[in-house]
Amino acid sequence: AAAGTSTLAAPAIAQSRIEWKMVTTWPKNFPGQGTGAVRFANSVEAATEGRLKINVFAAGELVPPFESFDAVTRGAADLMHATPYYWPNKSKALMFYSTVPFGLTTGEQEAWMQYGGGQELWDKVLDPFGLKGFHAGSTGGQMGGWFNKEITGPGSVNGMKMRIPGLGGEALKKLGMTVVNLPGGEIFAALQSGAIDATEWVGPWNDLTFGFYKVAKYYYWPGMHEPGTQIEVTIDKKKLTSLPKDVRAILEACIYQENLKFTAEFNARNGASLQTLVQTHNVQLKRFPNDFLQAYGEKCGEVIQELRDGGDAVTKEVIESFLKARREQASWNRIAEQGFMNARLLDYKFPS
Amino acid sequence: AAAGTSTLAAPAIAQSRIEWKMVTTWPKNFPGQGTGAVRFANSVEAATEGRLKINVFAAGELVPPFESFDAVTRGAADLMHATPYYWPNKSKALMFYSTVPFGLTTGEQEAWMQYGGGQELWDKVLDPFGLKGFHAGSTGGQMGGWFNKEITGPGSVNGMKMRIPGLGGEALKKLGMTVVNLPGGEIFAALQSGAIDATEWVGPWNDLTFGFYKVAKYYYWPGMHEPGTQIEVTIDKKKLTSLPKDVRAILEACIYQENLKFTAEFNARNGASLQTLVQTHNVQLKRFPNDFLQAYGEKCGEVIQELRDGGDAVTKEVIESFLKARREQASWNRIAEQGFMNARLLDYKFPS
Repeated sequence: AAAGTSTLAAPAIAQSRIEWKMVTTWPKNFPGQGTGAVRFANSVEAATEGRLKINVFAAGELVPPFESFDAVTRGAADLMHATPYYWPNKSKALMFYSTVPFGLTTGEQEAWMQYGGGQELWDKVLDPFGLKGFHAGSTGGQMGGWFNKEITGPGSVNGMKMRIPGLGGEALKKLGMTVVNLPGGEIFAALQSGAIDATEWVGPWNDLTFGFYKVAKYYYWPGMHEPGTQIEVTIDKKKLTSLPKDVRAILEACIYQENLKFTAEFNARNGASLQTLVQTHNVQLKRFPNDFLQAYGEKCGEVIQELRDGGDAVTKEVIESFLKARREQASWNRIAEQGFMNARLLDYKFPS
Repeated sequence: AAAGTSTLAAPAIAQSRIEWKMVTTWPKNFPGQGTGAVRFANSVEAATEGRLKINVFAAGELVPPFESFDAVTRGAADLMHATPYYWPNKSKALMFYSTVPFGLTTGEQEAWMQYGGGQELWDKVLDPFGLKGFHAGSTGGQMGGWFNKEITGPGSVNGMKMRIPGLGGEALKKLGMTVVNLPGGEIFAALQSGAIDATEWVGPWNDLTFGFYKVAKYYYWPGMHEPGTQIEVTIDKKKLTSLPKDVRAILEACIYQENLKFTAEFNARNGASLQTLVQTHNVQLKRFPNDFLQAYGEKCGEVIQELRDGGDAVTKEVIESFLKARREQASWNRIAEQGFMNARLLDYKFPS
């Protein structure tokens, strides 16, 4: 009898109505990251006709933001919407999956992920934690940050206290900065109280939302520390592989959909928001001087070199792979996208 | 009885097993465009568990490549994988949905499409033809093209015959060039026989496949005529809207997935292919001189101005919207992605 009934499957729809909890590291409905997380969850529900429903929890609703990784590994949540450089205490290699200072642009990073070996190595890093990660969007190139003092050279930042996560922060320590990491929701108060002297967060759209222009004088560019910061959707691997095959394929397609929409939205909103900051709020835009950028690049290089020398086998492999992608991508883009953008600024008449 | 049975729906799976014919403008399995079309079709079949199956026809298998648009409008095919500037005889506005010379990069173009009004206006352009289009990937910034004569200034191109479609070709006519459009599969022979003196196609990866280095001397950059050329998946609108709601949502997610993968693959492969062209095939890379670029930019501006002045209402609307996106995006990216890439080239030590 058992053998007979096994061929008579229960209706697929009844088998597979699944609810997942997704924790995020962002404030509730925060424009960009928070709204993107909800857009993603909605797209999965629509495309699976509710066979997979993802309930979204903002930072602090289920667990504090920086406990999201642990929440998924211990089963308190099923997946998270975050960014990998929040977890350097799990693996230093994860920092290469958000963004690398003086590294790759958004498009270059995605090329590494999809067709340069980046995803396979990320799988290797996350496997011991029982997780599988996907890139789910990029903030694009970020701004260098908000400062209350002018940067006149490499010595300017000595003794300053700045909120900046990831490898870019490590390099600034070598220039004498004190570096802290804070989740988005805590930065404004820290800057206002003088607990920190400077902060980077993301770019004009996000920074306008938080109102940093009210508590900081200068807005510096370029954002060498974060040339294209990737968002992650990272999932409990066992729960992912136990999904019906088609639901998993739909879920992955929806992650790609969110990746593209997230990145496009940041590009679109940053332009308009930058104009508001400059024209309405009189924010002073400043470019870092070249001697600061060169000293900073040198220190970022040292940080990566030290990680490679001292890292475990997988971290070394990630760094080698990343640097190969950087060589190939930078030499191509120097004449492609960069060549185009520089020539676009030449002097010629064009309708506007 | 009729009222009674209407609540007892037939199994959804039997209702909705659909096969579609997709025509493409690319040679069979051509790396990038051709393989991307197949990858997209496979992803739809997997994610819908075969409820929607897309059969892919290469250029010439069902209809000649440049008859793809008509094939979908007359019902001989259900959708196409192509690029919109192949159809200027349908609407001049469509040229803004492939790429615009001196216009937007891939990321900027996608920002316009998704969050700058571009998609809504494309819907308006295609509606009279009963079509709905989606962007399904970008080749990224292209190369300026293959030439057998050096470009020493704006006068150099006078009298030359070049294969180049779209608005960039229109502008070159104003500099005295004779311009033709040919599908990919016909370019090599035309260049070899001397029927054309120059050609652009895409970038290192595609151009290596066609072997243009065997019949042309110089490989020019930057590709101002095509800063980020978008692929389209354009579908018979009635057939699209008659899909079950979830199948349509899955199909759209799979188009976004293909969009991201397509673009990432071009970025990844172009770098490696450029090295092969230069190191193995001794291709001579040359940058267009600034006076040529400025004259070309001026003519491109004139072409767009004339289109705006003489175009129908929708074309004017498309151009206004595009130019607004260009203003906002270029002013943001000048300090973001472009600011980053230029500073990345400064002199500092970095591991490689």
